Amino acid sequence: MRSATVPGRVESVADGRVVANALVDGHSALDVPLDDRGLAYGDGLFETIRFIGGAAPLWRGHMVRLMRGCKALRLTAPPPATLHRDATLLAAQDDCIVKLIVTRADGRGYAGGTRARRIALRYAVPDVEPADYVLGVRARWCRLRLSLQPALAGLKHLNRLEQIIARAEWNDRRIREGLLCDADDRVIGATSANIFIVRRDRLLTPQLDRCGVAGVARAWIIAQAKRWLPVEECVLARKDIESADEVFLSNAVRGIAPIRAIASQRFGIGPVTRRLGYTLARLGIGRSPD
Amino acid sequence: MRSATVPGRVESVADGRVVANALVDGHSALDVPLDDRGLAYGDGLFETIRFIGGAAPLWRGHMVRLMRGCKALRLTAPPPATLHRDATLLAAQDDCIVKLIVTRADGRGYAGGTRARRIALRYAVPDVEPADYVLGVRARWCRLRLSLQPALAGLKHLNRLEQIIARAEWNDRRIREGLLCDADDRVIGATSANIFIVRRDRLLTPQLDRCGVAGVARAWIIAQAKRWLPVEECVLARKDIESADEVFLSNAVRGIAPIRAIASQRFGIGPVTRRLGYTLARLGIGRSPD
Repeated sequence: MRSATVPGRVESVADGRVVANALVDGHSALDVPLDDRGLAYGDGLFETIRFIGGAAPLWRGHMVRLMRGCKALRLTAPPPATLHRDATLLAAQDDCIVKLIVTRADGRGYAGGTRARRIALRYAVPDVEPADYVLGVRARWCRLRLSLQPALAGLKHLNRLEQIIARAEWNDRRIREGLLCDADDRVIGATSANIFIVRRDRLLTPQLDRCGVAGVARAWIIAQAKRWLPVEECVLARKDIESADEVFLSNAVRGIAPIRAIASQRFGIGPVTRRLGYTLARLGIGRSPD
Repeated sequence: MRSATVPGRVESVADGRVVANALVDGHSALDVPLDDRGLAYGDGLFETIRFIGGAAPLWRGHMVRLMRGCKALRLTAPPPATLHRDATLLAAQDDCIVKLIVTRADGRGYAGGTRARRIALRYAVPDVEPADYVLGVRARWCRLRLSLQPALAGLKHLNRLEQIIARAEWNDRRIREGLLCDADDRVIGATSANIFIVRRDRLLTPQLDRCGVAGVARAWIIAQAKRWLPVEECVLARKDIESADEVFLSNAVRGIAPIRAIASQRFGIGPVTRRLGYTLARLGIGRSPD
Protein backbone atom coordinates (compact mmCIF):
# COMPACT_ATOMS: atom_id res chain seq x y z
CA MET A 1 0.00 0.00 0.00
CA ARG A 2 1.13 3.50 -0.73
CA SER A 3 1.47 5.54 2.40
CA ALA A 4 0.05 9.02 2.62
CA THR A 5 2.85 11.52 2.98
CA VAL A 6 1.19 13.16 5.98
CA PRO A 7 0.12 10.75 8.71
CA GLY A 8 -2.19 11.55 11.58
CA ARG A 9 -4.95 14.08 11.54
CA VAL A 10 -4.03 16.41 8.68
CA GLU A 11 -6.59 16.04 5.93
CA SER A 12 -5.21 15.33 2.50
CA VAL A 13 -7.94 14.95 -0.05
CA ALA A 14 -6.35 13.13 -2.94
CA ASP A 15 -7.71 13.22 -6.48
CA GLY A 16 -10.89 14.95 -5.26
CA ARG A 17 -11.79 11.84 -3.32
CA VAL A 18 -13.91 11.97 -0.20
CA VAL A 19 -11.31 10.19 1.87
CA ALA A 20 -9.75 12.73 4.14
CA ASN A 21 -7.44 10.44 5.94
CA ALA A 22 -7.18 6.76 6.46
CA LEU A 23 -5.31 3.97 8.17
CA VAL A 24 -4.81 0.37 7.14
CA ASP A 25 -3.69 -1.82 10.03
CA GLY A 26 -2.73 1.34 11.83
CA HIS A 27 -0.59 2.78 9.05
CA SER A 28 -1.52 5.83 7.04
CA ALA A 29 -2.72 4.71 3.62
CA LEU A 30 -4.89 5.62 0.65
CA ASP A 31 -5.28 2.20 -0.89
CA VAL A 32 -5.93 -1.42 -0.13
CA PRO A 33 -4.31 -4.38 -1.89
CA LEU A 34 -6.26 -5.57 -4.92
CA ASP A 35 -6.64 -9.04 -3.48
CA ASP A 36 -8.30 -7.87 -0.27
CA ARG A 37 -11.24 -10.15 0.43
CA GLY A 38 -13.45 -7.21 1.29
CA LEU A 39 -13.20 -6.19 -2.36
CA ALA A 40 -13.28 -9.73 -3.75
CA TYR A 41 -16.27 -11.05 -1.82
CA GLY A 42 -17.55 -8.38 0.56
CA ASP A 43 -15.89 -10.61 3.16
CA GLY A 44 -16.01 -8.32 6.16
CA LEU A 45 -17.90 -5.85 8.31
CA PHE A 46 -18.11 -2.12 8.87
CA GLU A 47 -19.18 0.54 11.35
CA THR A 48 -19.84 4.19 10.58
CA ILE A 49 -19.21 6.12 13.76
CA ARG A 50 -20.06 9.70 14.68
CA PHE A 51 -17.31 11.55 16.54
CA ILE A 52 -18.04 14.81 18.36
CA GLY A 53 -15.06 16.72 19.66
CA GLY A 54 -12.99 13.58 19.31
CA ALA A 55 -15.38 11.34 21.29
CA ALA A 56 -17.87 8.78 19.98
CA PRO A 57 -20.98 8.63 22.20
CA LEU A 58 -22.15 5.33 20.68
CA TRP A 59 -18.70 3.72 20.54
CA ARG A 60 -19.65 0.84 22.82
CA GLY A 61 -22.65 -0.11 20.67
CA HIS A 62 -20.53 -0.11 17.54
CA MET A 63 -18.03 -2.41 19.21
CA VAL A 64 -20.73 -4.79 20.45
CA ARG A 65 -22.10 -5.17 16.93
CA LEU A 66 -18.67 -5.45 15.31
CA MET A 67 -17.53 -8.13 17.76
CA ARG A 68 -20.76 -10.06 17.17
CA GLY A 69 -20.14 -9.79 13.41
CA CYS A 70 -16.56 -11.05 13.71
CA LYS A 71 -17.81 -14.03 15.67
CA ALA A 72 -20.51 -14.82 13.10
CA LEU A 73 -17.99 -14.59 10.25
CA ARG A 74 -15.29 -16.45 12.21
CA LEU A 75 -12.91 -13.53 11.98
CA THR A 76 -10.32 -12.83 14.66
CA ALA A 77 -11.72 -9.58 15.99
CA PRO A 78 -9.25 -6.71 16.28
CA PRO A 79 -9.08 -5.58 19.93
CA PRO A 80 -11.54 -2.72 20.52
CA ALA A 81 -8.69 -0.76 22.11
CA THR A 82 -6.74 -1.00 18.85
CA LEU A 83 -9.77 0.08 16.84
CA HIS A 84 -10.26 2.95 19.26
CA ARG A 85 -6.67 4.06 18.78
CA ASP A 86 -7.10 4.03 15.00
CA ALA A 87 -10.38 5.92 15.18
CA THR A 88 -9.28 8.57 17.63
CA LEU A 89 -6.06 9.15 15.70
CA LEU A 90 -8.17 9.98 12.65
CA ALA A 91 -10.86 11.88 14.53
CA ALA A 92 -8.41 13.91 16.63
CA GLN A 93 -10.52 16.43 18.55
CA ASP A 94 -12.89 17.04 15.65
CA ASP A 95 -16.48 16.51 14.62
CA CYS A 96 -16.34 13.88 11.93
CA ILE A 97 -17.30 10.38 10.84
CA VAL A 98 -14.91 7.50 11.21
CA LYS A 99 -15.75 4.43 9.20
CA LEU A 100 -14.13 1.23 10.40
CA ILE A 101 -13.93 -1.71 8.02
CA VAL A 102 -12.70 -5.14 9.04
CA THR A 103 -11.97 -7.55 6.19
CA ARG A 104 -10.67 -11.10 6.06
CA ALA A 105 -7.38 -9.73 4.69
CA ASP A 106 -6.13 -11.27 1.43
CA GLY A 107 -6.52 -14.50 -0.42
CA ARG A 108 -8.41 -16.15 -3.24
CA GLY A 109 -11.26 -18.59 -2.88
CA TYR A 110 -14.21 -18.82 -0.53
CA ALA A 111 -12.14 -20.71 2.05
CA GLY A 112 -10.47 -17.92 3.96
CA GLY A 113 -8.46 -17.66 7.12
CA THR A 114 -9.41 -15.85 10.30
CA ARG A 115 -6.90 -13.00 10.09
CA ALA A 116 -8.51 -9.58 9.89
CA ARG A 117 -7.36 -6.36 8.25
CA ARG A 118 -8.34 -3.09 9.93
CA ILE A 119 -9.26 -0.15 7.74
CA ALA A 120 -10.22 3.22 9.21
CA LEU A 121 -11.44 6.12 7.09
CA ARG A 122 -12.24 9.65 8.15
CA TYR A 123 -15.09 11.53 6.46
CA ALA A 124 -16.76 14.88 7.00
CA VAL A 125 -20.09 14.89 8.82
CA PRO A 126 -22.82 14.68 6.16
CA ASP A 127 -25.11 17.67 5.76
CA VAL A 128 -28.61 17.08 7.05
CA GLU A 129 -31.38 19.65 6.52
CA PRO A 130 -32.52 21.04 9.89
CA ALA A 131 -36.07 20.71 8.56
CA ASP A 132 -35.61 16.93 8.50
CA TYR A 133 -35.61 16.97 12.29
CA VAL A 134 -38.10 19.76 12.89
CA LEU A 135 -40.69 18.90 10.25
CA GLY A 136 -39.77 15.29 9.60
CA VAL A 137 -38.73 13.50 6.43
CA ARG A 138 -40.56 12.04 3.49
CA ALA A 139 -40.18 8.32 2.79
CA ARG A 140 -41.43 5.82 0.25
CA TRP A 141 -41.95 2.10 0.04
CA CYS A 142 -39.32 0.21 -1.97
CA ARG A 143 -40.29 -2.53 -4.42
CA LEU A 144 -37.24 -4.63 -3.58
CA ARG A 145 -37.85 -7.29 -0.97
CA LEU A 146 -35.00 -8.12 1.40
CA SER A 147 -33.99 -11.75 1.29
CA LEU A 148 -34.10 -13.89 4.43
CA GLN A 149 -30.72 -15.01 5.73
CA PRO A 150 -30.63 -15.71 9.47
CA ALA A 151 -26.87 -16.41 9.29
CA LEU A 152 -26.24 -12.74 8.43
CA ALA A 153 -29.27 -11.04 9.96
CA GLY A 154 -28.53 -7.99 12.06
CA LEU A 155 -24.88 -7.73 11.01
CA LYS A 156 -23.38 -4.69 9.35
CA HIS A 157 -21.50 -6.75 6.78
CA LEU A 158 -20.01 -5.63 3.50
CA ASN A 159 -22.64 -7.31 1.29
CA ARG A 160 -24.93 -4.37 0.66
CA LEU A 161 -26.19 -4.80 -2.90
CA GLU A 162 -29.79 -5.07 -1.75
CA GLN A 163 -29.58 -1.62 -0.19
CA ILE A 164 -27.97 -0.24 -3.34
CA ILE A 165 -30.66 -1.69 -5.59
CA ALA A 166 -33.38 -0.37 -3.29
CA ARG A 167 -31.78 3.08 -3.09
CA ALA A 168 -31.66 3.23 -6.89
CA GLU A 169 -35.46 3.00 -7.05
CA TRP A 170 -35.92 6.76 -6.62
CA ASN A 171 -34.18 9.97 -7.64
CA ASP A 172 -36.37 12.58 -6.00
CA ARG A 173 -34.05 14.32 -3.53
CA ARG A 174 -37.01 15.38 -1.40
CA ILE A 175 -37.57 11.72 -0.51
CA ARG A 176 -35.00 10.91 2.11
CA GLU A 177 -35.54 7.22 2.64
CA GLY A 178 -36.95 4.07 1.13
CA LEU A 179 -38.72 1.66 3.46
CA LEU A 180 -37.99 -2.01 3.02
CA CYS A 181 -40.03 -5.14 3.54
CA ASP A 182 -38.68 -8.65 3.49
CA ALA A 183 -39.65 -11.50 1.20
CA ASP A 184 -42.67 -12.20 3.45
CA ASP A 185 -43.77 -8.53 3.31
CA ARG A 186 -42.72 -7.87 6.88
CA VAL A 187 -41.38 -4.35 7.41
CA ILE A 188 -37.65 -4.40 8.22
CA GLY A 189 -36.35 -0.83 8.06
CA ALA A 190 -35.07 1.72 5.57
CA THR A 191 -32.11 1.55 3.20
CA SER A 192 -29.81 3.19 5.77
CA ALA A 193 -31.90 3.53 8.91
CA ASN A 194 -34.02 1.51 11.29
CA ILE A 195 -37.69 2.25 11.79
CA PHE A 196 -39.75 2.68 14.95
CA ILE A 197 -43.42 3.28 15.47
CA VAL A 198 -45.49 4.28 18.46
CA ARG A 199 -48.85 2.55 18.82
CA ARG A 200 -51.04 2.90 21.89
CA ASP A 201 -48.14 4.15 24.00
CA ARG A 202 -45.87 1.31 23.04
CA LEU A 203 -42.65 1.67 21.05
CA LEU A 204 -42.37 -1.00 18.37
CA THR A 205 -39.56 -1.85 15.97
CA PRO A 206 -39.13 -4.79 13.58
CA GLN A 207 -37.38 -7.85 14.91
CA LEU A 208 -34.26 -8.49 12.86
CA ASP A 209 -33.60 -12.19 13.25
CA ARG A 210 -34.05 -13.05 9.56
CA CYS A 211 -32.65 -9.99 7.76
CA GLY A 212 -31.90 -6.31 8.23
CA VAL A 213 -29.17 -4.39 10.04
CA ALA A 214 -29.49 -4.04 13.81
CA GLY A 215 -28.56 -0.38 14.11
CA VAL A 216 -26.45 0.98 16.91
CA ALA A 217 -28.83 3.93 17.34
CA ARG A 218 -31.66 1.38 17.37
CA ALA A 219 -30.04 -0.49 20.28
CA TRP A 220 -29.49 2.79 22.13
CA ILE A 221 -33.15 3.80 21.60
CA ILE A 222 -34.47 0.45 22.80
CA ALA A 223 -32.36 0.65 25.96
CA GLN A 224 -33.30 4.28 26.64
CA ALA A 225 -36.99 3.96 25.91
CA LYS A 226 -37.38 0.86 28.09
CA ARG A 227 -36.86 3.08 31.12
CA TRP A 228 -40.18 4.82 30.61
CA LEU A 229 -42.17 2.96 27.95
CA PRO A 230 -43.01 -0.62 26.89
CA VAL A 231 -40.75 -1.52 23.95
CA GLU A 232 -41.18 -4.50 21.64
CA GLU A 233 -39.16 -5.99 18.82
CA CYS A 234 -41.89 -7.64 16.81
CA VAL A 235 -43.31 -8.49 13.39
CA LEU A 236 -44.71 -5.37 11.71
CA ALA A 237 -46.70 -5.15 8.49
CA ARG A 238 -46.96 -2.17 6.19
CA LYS A 239 -50.40 -1.40 7.58
CA ASP A 240 -48.93 -1.21 11.10
CA ILE A 241 -46.61 1.56 9.95
CA GLU A 242 -49.36 3.34 8.05
CA SER A 243 -51.73 3.30 11.03
CA ALA A 244 -49.12 4.26 13.65
CA ASP A 245 -49.40 7.23 15.99
CA GLU A 246 -45.75 8.15 15.41
CA VAL A 247 -43.13 6.90 12.97
CA PHE A 248 -39.44 7.71 13.04
CA LEU A 249 -36.13 6.60 11.59
CA SER A 250 -32.89 6.07 13.48
CA ASN A 251 -29.30 6.17 12.31
CA ALA A 252 -26.10 6.33 14.34
CA VAL A 253 -24.77 9.27 12.31
CA ARG A 254 -27.93 11.26 11.60
CA GLY A 255 -29.81 10.49 14.81
CA ILE A 256 -33.58 10.36 14.97
CA ALA A 257 -35.65 11.76 12.11
CA PRO A 258 -39.45 11.81 12.39
CA ILE A 259 -41.30 10.60 9.31
CA ARG A 260 -43.84 13.16 8.20
CA ALA A 261 -45.00 11.44 5.04
CA ILE A 262 -44.90 8.05 3.37
CA ALA A 263 -46.06 8.66 -0.19
CA SER A 264 -49.27 10.69 0.27
CA GLN A 265 -49.87 9.67 3.86
CA ARG A 266 -49.04 12.20 6.60
CA PHE A 267 -47.81 11.74 10.16
CA GLY A 268 -47.40 14.17 13.02
CA ILE A 269 -44.35 14.31 15.29
CA GLY A 270 -45.39 12.78 18.58
CA PRO A 271 -44.08 13.01 22.13
CA VAL A 272 -42.08 9.76 22.10
CA THR A 273 -40.21 10.79 18.97
CA ARG A 274 -39.57 14.22 20.47
CA ARG A 275 -38.26 12.87 23.74
CA LEU A 276 -35.94 10.29 22.15
CA GLY A 277 -34.77 12.74 19.49
CA TYR A 278 -33.99 15.30 22.17
CA THR A 279 -32.06 12.81 24.30
CA LEU A 280 -29.98 11.47 21.40
CA ALA A 281 -29.32 15.01 20.16
CA ARG A 282 -27.99 15.89 23.61
CA LEU A 283 -25.29 13.29 22.99
CA GLY A 284 -24.47 15.21 19.81
CA ILE A 285 -26.15 12.83 17.36
CA GLY A 286 -28.80 14.45 15.22
CA ARG A 287 -30.96 17.35 16.32
CA SER A 288 -33.89 17.67 18.62
CA PRO A 289 -37.24 17.94 16.81
CA ASP A 290 -37.97 21.04 18.90
CA MET B 1 -2.85 3.96 -6.70
CA ARG B 2 0.72 2.82 -6.60
CA SER B 3 1.90 1.59 -9.96
CA ALA B 4 3.78 -1.63 -10.28
CA THR B 5 7.28 -0.92 -11.49
CA VAL B 6 7.02 -3.49 -14.23
CA PRO B 7 3.90 -3.26 -16.35
CA GLY B 8 2.65 -5.87 -18.76
CA ARG B 9 3.19 -9.55 -18.41
CA VAL B 10 6.14 -9.87 -16.07
CA GLU B 11 5.02 -11.44 -12.83
CA SER B 12 5.96 -9.53 -9.71
CA VAL B 13 4.64 -11.21 -6.61
CA ALA B 14 4.73 -8.52 -3.93
CA ASP B 15 4.78 -9.25 -0.21
CA GLY B 16 4.14 -12.93 -0.89
CA ARG B 17 0.74 -12.04 -2.32
CA VAL B 18 -0.96 -14.14 -4.94
CA VAL B 19 -1.42 -11.21 -7.29
CA ALA B 20 1.02 -11.64 -10.08
CA ASN B 21 0.03 -8.65 -12.08
CA ALA B 22 -2.92 -6.38 -12.22
CA LEU B 23 -4.50 -3.43 -13.99
CA VAL B 24 -6.92 -0.83 -12.68
CA ASP B 25 -8.70 1.02 -15.47
CA GLY B 26 -6.00 -0.24 -17.79
CA HIS B 27 -3.06 0.97 -15.69
CA SER B 28 -0.68 -1.33 -13.90
CA ALA B 29 -1.52 -1.28 -10.18
CA LEU B 30 -1.33 -3.24 -6.94
CA ASP B 31 -3.97 -1.40 -4.97
CA VAL B 32 -7.41 0.09 -5.18
CA PRO B 33 -8.55 3.33 -3.50
CA LEU B 34 -9.93 2.77 -0.01
CA ASP B 35 -13.26 4.31 -0.93
CA ASP B 36 -13.91 1.93 -3.83
CA ARG B 37 -17.52 0.80 -3.62
CA GLY B 38 -16.52 -2.78 -4.32
CA LEU B 39 -14.80 -2.77 -0.94
CA ALA B 40 -17.39 -0.63 0.82
CA TYR B 41 -20.52 -2.51 -0.26
CA GLY B 42 -19.58 -5.33 -2.60
CA ASP B 43 -21.02 -3.00 -5.23
CA GLY B 44 -19.87 -4.75 -8.37
CA LEU B 45 -19.37 -7.94 -10.33
CA PHE B 46 -16.60 -10.33 -11.24
CA GLU B 47 -15.57 -13.01 -13.71
CA THR B 48 -12.83 -15.58 -13.23
CA ILE B 49 -11.57 -16.54 -16.67
CA ARG B 50 -9.35 -19.40 -17.77
CA PHE B 51 -6.75 -18.45 -20.38
CA ILE B 52 -4.90 -21.13 -22.34
CA GLY B 53 -1.98 -19.97 -24.45
CA GLY B 54 -3.34 -16.43 -24.22
CA ALA B 55 -6.86 -17.30 -25.36
CA ALA B 56 -10.02 -17.68 -23.29
CA PRO B 57 -12.33 -20.37 -24.76
CA LEU B 58 -15.31 -19.23 -22.67
CA TRP B 59 -14.70 -15.49 -23.10
CA ARG B 60 -18.02 -14.84 -24.78
CA GLY B 61 -20.00 -16.47 -21.97
CA HIS B 62 -18.15 -14.42 -19.37
CA MET B 63 -18.99 -11.25 -21.26
CA VAL B 64 -22.67 -12.19 -21.63
CA ARG B 65 -22.98 -12.67 -17.88
CA LEU B 66 -20.96 -9.57 -17.00
CA MET B 67 -23.04 -7.37 -19.31
CA ARG B 68 -26.24 -8.80 -17.83
CA GLY B 69 -24.89 -8.03 -14.37
CA CYS B 70 -23.99 -4.44 -15.27
CA LYS B 71 -27.51 -3.94 -16.57
CA ALA B 72 -29.08 -5.38 -13.41
CA LEU B 73 -26.90 -3.17 -11.20
CA ARG B 74 -27.33 -0.12 -13.48
CA LEU B 75 -23.62 0.13 -14.10
CA THR B 76 -22.20 1.53 -17.33
CA ALA B 77 -20.64 -1.63 -18.69
CA PRO B 78 -17.03 -1.35 -19.82
CA PRO B 79 -16.80 -2.27 -23.53
CA PRO B 80 -15.96 -5.97 -23.90
CA ALA B 81 -13.15 -4.99 -26.27
CA THR B 82 -11.58 -2.91 -23.49
CA LEU B 83 -11.93 -5.75 -21.01
CA HIS B 84 -10.40 -8.09 -23.58
CA ARG B 85 -7.45 -5.76 -24.01
CA ASP B 86 -6.90 -5.67 -20.23
CA ALA B 87 -7.22 -9.44 -19.92
CA THR B 88 -4.99 -10.36 -22.84
CA LEU B 89 -2.34 -7.88 -21.71
CA LEU B 90 -2.16 -9.72 -18.38
CA ALA B 91 -2.51 -13.20 -19.85
CA ALA B 92 0.02 -12.63 -22.61
CA GLN B 93 0.51 -16.02 -24.30
CA ASP B 94 0.31 -17.94 -21.07
CA ASP B 95 -1.86 -20.44 -19.24
CA CYS B 96 -3.36 -18.49 -16.36
CA ILE B 97 -6.48 -17.13 -14.71
CA VAL B 98 -7.57 -13.56 -15.27
CA LYS B 99 -10.09 -12.25 -12.80
CA LEU B 100 -12.03 -9.22 -13.96
CA ILE B 101 -13.79 -7.11 -11.35
CA VAL B 102 -16.10 -4.24 -12.23
CA THR B 103 -17.04 -1.95 -9.35
CA ARG B 104 -19.17 1.19 -9.11
CA ALA B 105 -15.97 3.22 -8.64
CA ASP B 106 -15.83 5.47 -5.55
CA GLY B 107 -18.25 7.23 -3.31
CA ARG B 108 -20.02 6.96 0.01
CA GLY B 109 -23.66 6.06 0.54
CA TYR B 110 -25.94 3.53 -1.09
CA ALA B 111 -26.90 6.01 -3.83
CA GLY B 112 -24.13 5.52 -6.35
CA GLY B 113 -23.48 6.65 -9.89
CA THR B 114 -23.21 4.47 -12.96
CA ARG B 115 -19.48 4.89 -13.59
CA ALA B 116 -17.57 1.62 -13.45
CA ARG B 117 -14.00 0.87 -12.46
CA ARG B 118 -12.23 -1.99 -14.24
CA ILE B 119 -9.92 -4.20 -12.26
CA ALA B 120 -8.03 -7.08 -13.85
CA LEU B 121 -5.90 -9.51 -11.87
CA ARG B 122 -3.72 -12.33 -13.11
CA TYR B 123 -3.40 -15.52 -11.07
CA ALA B 124 -1.73 -18.86 -11.58
CA VAL B 125 -3.92 -21.77 -12.65
CA PRO B 126 -5.02 -23.56 -9.47
CA ASP B 127 -3.77 -27.10 -8.93
CA VAL B 128 -6.44 -29.73 -9.38
CA GLU B 129 -5.78 -33.37 -8.55
CA PRO B 130 -5.98 -35.48 -11.73
CA ALA B 131 -7.92 -38.00 -9.63
CA ASP B 132 -10.71 -35.44 -9.26
CA TYR B 133 -11.47 -35.90 -12.94
CA VAL B 134 -10.73 -39.58 -13.31
CA LEU B 135 -12.28 -40.90 -10.09
CA GLY B 136 -14.56 -37.98 -9.25
CA VAL B 137 -14.76 -35.76 -6.20
CA ARG B 138 -16.32 -36.07 -2.78
CA ALA B 139 -18.97 -33.53 -1.78
CA ARG B 140 -21.13 -32.83 1.24
CA TRP B 141 -24.39 -31.04 1.96
CA CYS B 142 -24.03 -27.62 3.54
CA ARG B 143 -26.25 -26.54 6.42
CA LEU B 144 -26.45 -22.95 5.20
CA ARG B 145 -29.52 -22.18 3.11
CA LEU B 146 -29.12 -19.68 0.27
CA SER B 147 -31.49 -16.74 0.57
CA LEU B 148 -33.94 -15.95 -2.21
CA GLN B 149 -33.29 -12.70 -4.06
CA PRO B 150 -34.58 -12.65 -7.64
CA ALA B 151 -33.04 -9.18 -8.20
CA LEU B 152 -29.55 -10.70 -7.89
CA ALA B 153 -30.17 -14.32 -8.93
CA GLY B 154 -27.75 -15.71 -11.48
CA LEU B 155 -25.30 -12.80 -11.25
CA LYS B 156 -21.66 -13.16 -10.30
CA HIS B 157 -21.76 -10.16 -7.99
CA LEU B 158 -19.31 -9.26 -5.23
CA ASN B 159 -21.66 -10.15 -2.33
CA ARG B 160 -20.40 -13.64 -1.56
CA LEU B 161 -20.69 -14.00 2.21
CA GLU B 162 -23.13 -16.88 1.88
CA GLN B 163 -20.55 -18.88 -0.07
CA ILE B 164 -17.89 -18.03 2.50
CA ILE B 165 -20.05 -19.11 5.43
CA ALA B 166 -20.97 -22.32 3.62
CA ARG B 167 -17.34 -23.05 2.71
CA ALA B 168 -16.35 -22.61 6.35
CA GLU B 169 -18.57 -25.54 7.34
CA TRP B 170 -15.89 -28.12 6.61
CA ASN B 171 -12.12 -28.45 6.87
CA ASP B 172 -11.58 -31.92 5.45
CA ARG B 173 -9.43 -31.33 2.38
CA ARG B 174 -10.63 -34.58 0.83
CA ILE B 175 -14.08 -33.01 0.48
CA ARG B 176 -13.90 -30.77 -2.53
CA GLU B 177 -17.28 -29.11 -2.52
CA GLY B 178 -20.28 -28.27 -0.39
CA LEU B 179 -23.70 -28.57 -2.01
CA LEU B 180 -26.17 -25.80 -1.33
CA CYS B 181 -29.93 -25.70 -1.06
CA ASP B 182 -32.02 -22.55 -0.90
CA ALA B 183 -34.37 -21.46 1.86
CA ASP B 184 -37.06 -23.74 0.38
CA ASP B 185 -34.68 -26.73 0.34
CA ARG B 186 -34.33 -26.67 -3.41
CA VAL B 187 -30.86 -27.67 -4.60
CA ILE B 188 -29.03 -24.72 -6.18
CA GLY B 189 -25.40 -25.74 -6.71
CA ALA B 190 -22.11 -25.89 -4.85
CA THR B 191 -20.10 -23.13 -3.17
CA SER B 192 -18.06 -22.51 -6.32
CA ALA B 193 -19.60 -24.74 -8.96
CA ASN B 194 -22.90 -25.57 -10.61
CA ILE B 195 -24.42 -29.01 -10.37
CA PHE B 196 -25.88 -31.27 -13.06
CA ILE B 197 -27.53 -34.64 -12.84
CA VAL B 198 -28.50 -37.22 -15.40
CA ARG B 199 -31.81 -38.98 -14.85
CA ARG B 200 -33.40 -41.29 -17.37
CA ASP B 201 -31.24 -39.92 -20.20
CA ARG B 202 -32.08 -36.32 -19.44
CA LEU B 203 -29.61 -33.71 -18.25
CA LEU B 204 -31.04 -31.65 -15.39
CA THR B 205 -29.67 -28.61 -13.57
CA PRO B 206 -31.30 -26.29 -11.03
CA GLN B 207 -33.10 -23.25 -12.36
CA LEU B 208 -31.47 -20.14 -10.94
CA ASP B 209 -34.17 -17.49 -11.07
CA ARG B 210 -34.32 -16.96 -7.29
CA CYS B 211 -30.70 -17.40 -6.19
CA GLY B 212 -27.41 -18.96 -7.20
CA VAL B 213 -24.76 -18.10 -9.76
CA ALA B 214 -25.45 -18.97 -13.39
CA GLY B 215 -22.05 -20.35 -14.28
CA VAL B 216 -20.37 -19.76 -17.63
CA ALA B 217 -19.39 -23.43 -17.84
CA ARG B 218 -23.01 -24.25 -16.98
CA ALA B 219 -24.25 -22.18 -19.94
CA TRP B 220 -21.71 -23.86 -22.23
CA ILE B 221 -22.77 -27.33 -21.04
CA ILE B 222 -26.46 -26.60 -21.54
CA ALA B 223 -25.82 -25.36 -25.09
CA GLN B 224 -23.55 -28.29 -25.96
CA ALA B 225 -25.68 -31.01 -24.44
CA LYS B 226 -28.87 -29.77 -26.10
CA ARG B 227 -27.44 -30.95 -29.41
CA TRP B 228 -27.74 -34.58 -28.40
CA LEU B 229 -29.77 -34.82 -25.19
CA PRO B 230 -32.90 -33.33 -23.58
CA VAL B 231 -31.75 -30.66 -21.10
CA GLU B 232 -33.90 -29.01 -18.46
CA GLU B 233 -33.40 -26.21 -15.97
CA CYS B 234 -35.79 -27.23 -13.25
CA VAL B 235 -36.55 -27.51 -9.55
CA LEU B 236 -34.45 -30.25 -7.95
CA ALA B 237 -34.66 -31.63 -4.45
CA ARG B 238 -31.89 -33.30 -2.50
CA LYS B 239 -33.45 -36.69 -3.19
CA ASP B 240 -33.25 -36.00 -6.93
CA ILE B 241 -29.51 -35.59 -6.61
CA GLU B 242 -29.15 -38.65 -4.40
CA SER B 243 -31.13 -40.87 -6.77
CA ALA B 244 -29.48 -39.62 -9.97
CA ASP B 245 -27.74 -41.82 -12.52
CA GLU B 246 -24.87 -39.34 -12.84
CA VAL B 247 -23.91 -36.22 -10.88
CA PHE B 248 -21.24 -33.73 -11.83
CA LEU B 249 -20.01 -30.24 -11.00
CA SER B 250 -19.07 -27.52 -13.48
CA ASN B 251 -16.77 -24.55 -13.11
CA ALA B 252 -15.31 -22.27 -15.78
CA VAL B 253 -11.78 -22.69 -14.42
CA ARG B 254 -11.75 -26.31 -13.27
CA GLY B 255 -14.09 -27.72 -15.89
CA ILE B 256 -16.29 -30.74 -15.26
CA ALA B 257 -15.71 -32.88 -12.19
CA PRO B 258 -17.79 -36.02 -11.65
CA ILE B 259 -19.13 -36.47 -8.13
CA ARG B 260 -18.21 -39.88 -6.79
CA ALA B 261 -19.58 -39.48 -3.30
CA ILE B 262 -21.90 -37.25 -1.31
CA ALA B 263 -21.29 -38.14 2.33
CA SER B 264 -21.50 -41.94 2.34
CA GLN B 265 -23.42 -42.26 -0.91
CA ARG B 266 -21.51 -43.36 -4.02
CA PHE B 267 -21.97 -42.50 -7.68
CA GLY B 268 -20.40 -43.87 -10.82
CA ILE B 269 -19.08 -41.76 -13.68
CA GLY B 270 -21.59 -42.05 -16.49
CA PRO B 271 -21.45 -41.56 -20.26
CA VAL B 272 -22.96 -38.04 -20.29
CA THR B 273 -20.43 -36.77 -17.75
CA ARG B 274 -17.64 -38.41 -19.75
CA ARG B 275 -18.70 -36.95 -23.05
CA LEU B 276 -19.18 -33.40 -21.71
CA GLY B 277 -15.99 -33.55 -19.65
CA TYR B 278 -14.05 -34.71 -22.70
CA THR B 279 -15.48 -31.95 -24.89
CA LEU B 280 -14.80 -29.17 -22.38
CA ALA B 281 -11.31 -30.55 -21.70
CA ARG B 282 -10.60 -30.38 -25.45
CA LEU B 283 -11.09 -26.61 -25.12
CA GLY B 284 -8.41 -26.71 -22.42
CA ILE B 285 -10.73 -26.42 -19.43
CA GLY B 286 -10.41 -29.26 -16.96
CA ARG B 287 -9.49 -32.81 -17.88
CA SER B 288 -11.34 -35.62 -19.52
CA PRO B 289 -12.57 -38.28 -17.07
CA ASP B 290 -10.91 -40.87 -19.30
